[in-house]
Amino acid sequence: MLNPNRTLTELKQLRDLTSDQNGAQRVAWTPIWQKAREWFATKLDGLPVEHHLDPAGNNWVTLPGASDQVLIIGGHLDSVPNGGWLDGALGILTGLEILRRFATQYNGRPPVTIRIVDWADEEGARFGRSLLGSSAFAGTDSIAADRVRKDKDGITMEAALRTCGIEIDRFPQARAEQQNAAAYIELHIEQGPVLEDLGLPLGVVMGTKGVERHAITFHGQEAHSGSTPMNARHDALAAAAKLALYIRTIAGKHKDAVCTMGSVKTFPGIVTAVVGRCEVTLDQRDLNAAVLATMYAEAREASERFAREEKCTVEWARIWNIEPVPFHPDLLALCEQAVTETSRHSHRLPSGPLHDAAEVARAGIPAVMMFVQSLGGISHNKIEDTKEVHLEMSVIALDSLATKAVEWIQRKTK
Amino acid sequence: MLNPNRTLTELKQLRDLTSDQNGAQRVAWTPIWQKAREWFATKLDGLPVEHHLDPAGNNWVTLPGASDQVLIIGGHLDSVPNGGWLDGALGILTGLEILRRFATQYNGRPPVTIRIVDWADEEGARFGRSLLGSSAFAGTDSIAADRVRKDKDGITMEAALRTCGIEIDRFPQARAEQQNAAAYIELHIEQGPVLEDLGLPLGVVMGTKGVERHAITFHGQEAHSGSTPMNARHDALAAAAKLALYIRTIAGKHKDAVCTMGSVKTFPGIVTAVVGRCEVTLDQRDLNAAVLATMYAEAREASERFAREEKCTVEWARIWNIEPVPFHPDLLALCEQAVTETSRHSHRLPSGPLHDAAEVARAGIPAVMMFVQSLGGISHNKIEDTKEVHLEMSVIALDSLATKAVEWIQRKTK
Repeated sequence: MLNPNRTLTELKQLRDLTSDQNGAQRVAWTPIWQKAREWFATKLDGLPVEHHLDPAGNNWVTLPGASDQVLIIGGHLDSVPNGGWLDGALGILTGLEILRRFATQYNGRPPVTIRIVDWADEEGARFGRSLLGSSAFAGTDSIAADRVRKDKDGITMEAALRTCGIEIDRFPQARAEQQNAAAYIELHIEQGPVLEDLGLPLGVVMGTKGVERHAITFHGQEAHSGSTPMNARHDALAAAAKLALYIRTIAGKHKDAVCTMGSVKTFPGIVTAVVGRCEVTLDQRDLNAAVLATMYAEAREASERFAREEKCTVEWARIWNIEPVPFHPDLLALCEQAVTETSRHSHRLPSGPLHDAAEVARAGIPAVMMFVQSLGGISHNKIEDTKEVHLEMSVIALDSLATKAVEWIQRKTK
Repeated sequence: MLNPNRTLTELKQLRDLTSDQNGAQRVAWTPIWQKAREWFATKLDGLPVEHHLDPAGNNWVTLPGASDQVLIIGGHLDSVPNGGWLDGALGILTGLEILRRFATQYNGRPPVTIRIVDWADEEGARFGRSLLGSSAFAGTDSIAADRVRKDKDGITMEAALRTCGIEIDRFPQARAEQQNAAAYIELHIEQGPVLEDLGLPLGVVMGTKGVERHAITFHGQEAHSGSTPMNARHDALAAAAKLALYIRTIAGKHKDAVCTMGSVKTFPGIVTAVVGRCEVTLDQRDLNAAVLATMYAEAREASERFAREEKCTVEWARIWNIEPVPFHPDLLALCEQAVTETSRHSHRLPSGPLHDAAEVARAGIPAVMMFVQSLGGISHNKIEDTKEVHLEMSVIALDSLATKAVEWIQRKTK
């Protein structure tokens, strides 16, 4: 019997074990994260499962089925510093509850093999590299760039992983876990306001948006704020301010597209000087690759126009980018059925944040995600929350999706 | 005989003695500043002058005249870190040359007493409090607030002054130096582009602009850049960007008025988050107090409108303000004559930067300043520069103004 209330109880246990007054502290490759994983392992006692870490530190729990074809249920126990209680952990503990249900219902031997994966370092909070474990699984790792990344204390990723028993050079071996993977499902909090605004508990995630992320520097001329007439200025902030406002026009042309200027730094950055250099970041996302490319081109063109208008120059440097990853159409349909059964109404929405499911999909494994409403759209914060009734509904809906996915796997492999 | 070329030579000596590859390092209350003052003292050898520090650390050189009425020629040897060779030092070394000329011409006893003052800590570079010595002289000191100011190493102003032999509690005694002060003149580089744009070497400074300086904080809502639709955002940066652009409209309504946003700080300030809090600074200046008050009110009103438009709130905190200080009409006329004699054309302009002359004028002492052209309007930088021919002209013109001021003092006291 599925017991969604047990999932709530376990989420609270985990919160109590791994949070302080500032929120969750389950940062990957730290003792509190390892404590969370040890606690999770105790929950497996008595279940007919096999349990191991892969060479990238992903934590696999396997309930062997009548077929060696695998349904994977994913999530992550790691959090950002001062994070919330649900981001990542909800997916894992829901997976645990569903695995228990399969084990009980089928006397330890479900029709297909059921696996839970607790991805290593989804957040990238310590080293600035998110989706670390799932990218190793997918074969999209970047070991050379990552091994030398340093945390704020100067410790390299390679050294930090080694203290957790992981050798970064062995990452490519994590791809072996793809064997027989037939479908991947993941439940996550939305981290945005869309479902709450629509009054819906649950949503079907169409895919993860592609991202163009750039550092943009406007160069003007530092000048004394008192002695430099307005018309003699080369004000780098003015050019940046125009772009900060114009990116809303760029995004506004497309449904669901977003453009964000998240950081502005002014140099010399003092009250008595016209800004000589202004460094900003731009993050652009859309589920459609062509839309994303257009938005990037428009922002670039606009930045050059604004620089000219303000007698400045501008340069762009790509921080990072990723293509949009659409989820599998069959699984989208099944997810929609599961959501509709549970809460009557469904809504399809893209995910702006990245998730491990995108790496799984990039590996060619059919994948889908389900979102549950986030209160106030807030995450990565100790006040991150979701109504308990919605959490219980999400466990029920993902369980339903798991059943449908198992049947889908069986149909495919007949 | 006035020797303007000697002033150039001495400016270069001082530069070589107190600069490194990044520019002048004569920051007040540091060893290099004291070295500059010791070097200056050696230049007084053989002159019939008295020389002492007042209780605020201002450096006074007195050539007694037939009358005890005093003409003061001011400047400052201190610089910002990585500063230029002329800012402040030009005034002092020109004063020295003019004092030599008076001493020679009148066999050590000019018609009125001539004093040079090297103000202590004009720049406020170490503790963020400019015009420190001249405000003590004027009786506008702020000892309680200043003594506890700390430099970047945590050293208090009170302690730093003590290592230079100055007790901050004795600042009020510096007012005694006002005795018999009949006129004050000061030569300074413009630090702006106005004279260069007009093709003029020299200008007459009408007064120092009043300043309204505020810290403005826009409060929005931090949100995930990927999951928060554009229309659901409370983007504090957007409100700030609107203000950054609108202050140009506000300043544009008035000749010579300026408004500057010099610093923008974004929180959390990361590429993946909508800005939840944006802290900016606003510096507004005009020579007319009513214009300044209007500009302040307009900026405040606009910030509230922009906050509402962006579903944010805004709060203002005054950092500092000062009334406009017009210079003395008689001395303005004499300065104009001196400039016209030397370079044919004169131009009256307000000073945006503050100067010690403003504190002197606030003490009721007739004062005026003369500006010499700055190349590119650049100061507070090692590339600060002025053509040598213009520097020599400025020495000649200030010397002429000194002669006229002495005659004016004689006429007044007859």
